[in-house]
Amino acid sequence: MSLLTRAEQALSTHFEAATGSGAPPLLQAAMRHAVFSGGARIRPQLCIAVATACGDDAPELSNAAAVALELMHCASLVHDDMPAFDNAPLRRGRPTVHKAYGEPLALLAGDGLIVMAYRVMLLSGQRQPQRLIALLDNLTQGVGLPDGIVAGQAWECETTADLGQYQRAKTGALFVSATCAGALSSGHAPEPWAPLGAFLGEAYQVADDIRDVIGDVASLGKPAGQDALHARPSATQVLGLDGAIQHFENLIRQAGDSVPPCASRDMLRQLVQHESERLVPKAVCEGSRQRRVQQAQALPPVLL
Amino acid sequence: MSLLTRAEQALSTHFEAATGSGAPPLLQAAMRHAVFSGGARIRPQLCIAVATACGDDAPELSNAAAVALELMHCASLVHDDMPAFDNAPLRRGRPTVHKAYGEPLALLAGDGLIVMAYRVMLLSGQRQPQRLIALLDNLTQGVGLPDGIVAGQAWECETTADLGQYQRAKTGALFVSATCAGALSSGHAPEPWAPLGAFLGEAYQVADDIRDVIGDVASLGKPAGQDALHARPSATQVLGLDGAIQHFENLIRQAGDSVPPCASRDMLRQLVQHESERLVPKAVCEGSRQRRVQQAQALPPVLL
Repeated sequence: MSLLTRAEQALSTHFEAATGSGAPPLLQAAMRHAVFSGGARIRPQLCIAVATACGDDAPELSNAAAVALELMHCASLVHDDMPAFDNAPLRRGRPTVHKAYGEPLALLAGDGLIVMAYRVMLLSGQRQPQRLIALLDNLTQGVGLPDGIVAGQAWECETTADLGQYQRAKTGALFVSATCAGALSSGHAPEPWAPLGAFLGEAYQVADDIRDVIGDVASLGKPAGQDALHARPSATQVLGLDGAIQHFENLIRQAGDSVPPCASRDMLRQLVQHESERLVPKAVCEGSRQRRVQQAQALPPVLL
Repeated sequence: MSLLTRAEQALSTHFEAATGSGAPPLLQAAMRHAVFSGGARIRPQLCIAVATACGDDAPELSNAAAVALELMHCASLVHDDMPAFDNAPLRRGRPTVHKAYGEPLALLAGDGLIVMAYRVMLLSGQRQPQRLIALLDNLTQGVGLPDGIVAGQAWECETTADLGQYQRAKTGALFVSATCAGALSSGHAPEPWAPLGAFLGEAYQVADDIRDVIGDVASLGKPAGQDALHARPSATQVLGLDGAIQHFENLIRQAGDSVPPCASRDMLRQLVQHESERLVPKAVCEGSRQRRVQQAQALPPVLL
């Protein structure tokens, strides 16, 4: 079974179980809209891939951890799309939750998904209390204060913010949680897996900045030009477009290199490469590389 | 030390520890504004009181559980006050979080407080893994789907809702969590303590409905008449004002009667009585009782 198929199946199963029976129907529908809308599921795939590399001796736990990460990610998207932030009408080409269900239910759907992430873990991990607690702690660090994605989003509300700290928290934190969750759910130490999450997370954020400049609604599934519109710190703004693309390529290389020696090393490096191509197509990187070479050749030799 | 003092001290200590260092300053300030603004702390007091009744052999755990409950309560207030719901400018006589810090930070402060509630538990409970997991589960049930306070709030978005189910979820769920958390943190079974939380929680919600009709901004710290304004189901609407007051008095009596036999029974019944007076002053109940007697006497004998 592919990583994506396993992640999707786990999401369906755990979402049903954690919803239980008797919850308000519109809230359930809004939460379902937020979760089942064609996401790439990269965080759960990453979690399951690392779990596989670590032996995956408790797949019910790695599946639950993968689902919890994706629910947190979806919660953050629902709240980020709301008028208080991006005021985005579209996400992955479909109406955002507040457009489809109204702001009150979007607010509650986000809250409900955060709590559901914990519920999924608690429903699945009781037979492995130590691993469960470590996973809950790891998840909490990826989302909350001081360095999780909620803090990352909040850096946008400050008048000054360090770009690196902002990006590490806004996107990197949950990627680090994802790789570490894979290790923890299989009883392995998380530390060797943190750099893979950190590099890939930063690459994601940089790719998001690049696509915000070069993309269009059709390929992004959401409006471009949002960073400039909302005066958000971005890699393209600091490094220029070609500088940001070069930075992205470096991060992808570092992500691949950081995979610890294990039987699944090739599979993990393939996953990184596949994501790289999905995020910023090779043609874009190649075009940028050619421009950089031309610029370097156009410089007077003394400056080389 | 009084229950209130212990709850306040635990909140201060745990809030600092769970915030950590390096989080965005405005987010921290918004969360602090939400939590330290003169709340009655009834949920943490209830948790600590029940823990005391159950021997309180792990006070670091009962304190953490008490704090987590209050953080969840504060998160729900921040989000409920936002323009998408009540659009309330004041809470306990002070500007609401979105009025003081803007909507983006109010949204994130609520999210951050939900996650912080889990963090507080995880930071304090690692030496008692089984109790910690039971407490996390109990907290999650009080907040999330299908019957927690998020679901309760979402019933307001449905076109039809059962008043009892709505009130049990909107307010009762976290009160049940509070009494059960007191028992669980001391290693006791939670079931005997659930009715106390359920009766008191329903009494709170009915009191809120009553005060929404009779109160004014000065005594409520928030605008009155919100239920009618937002077309929310309410006990006064269904039962009339005097019927709602009678219902409130019955619930308070049932709450007191439900306290299981234990050395702290008198203390717990006193807490219930004290809260009853704080919620709906005796004079209001007495006035209502006299009206009901007069109405009964005014009826033709054949109908008695």
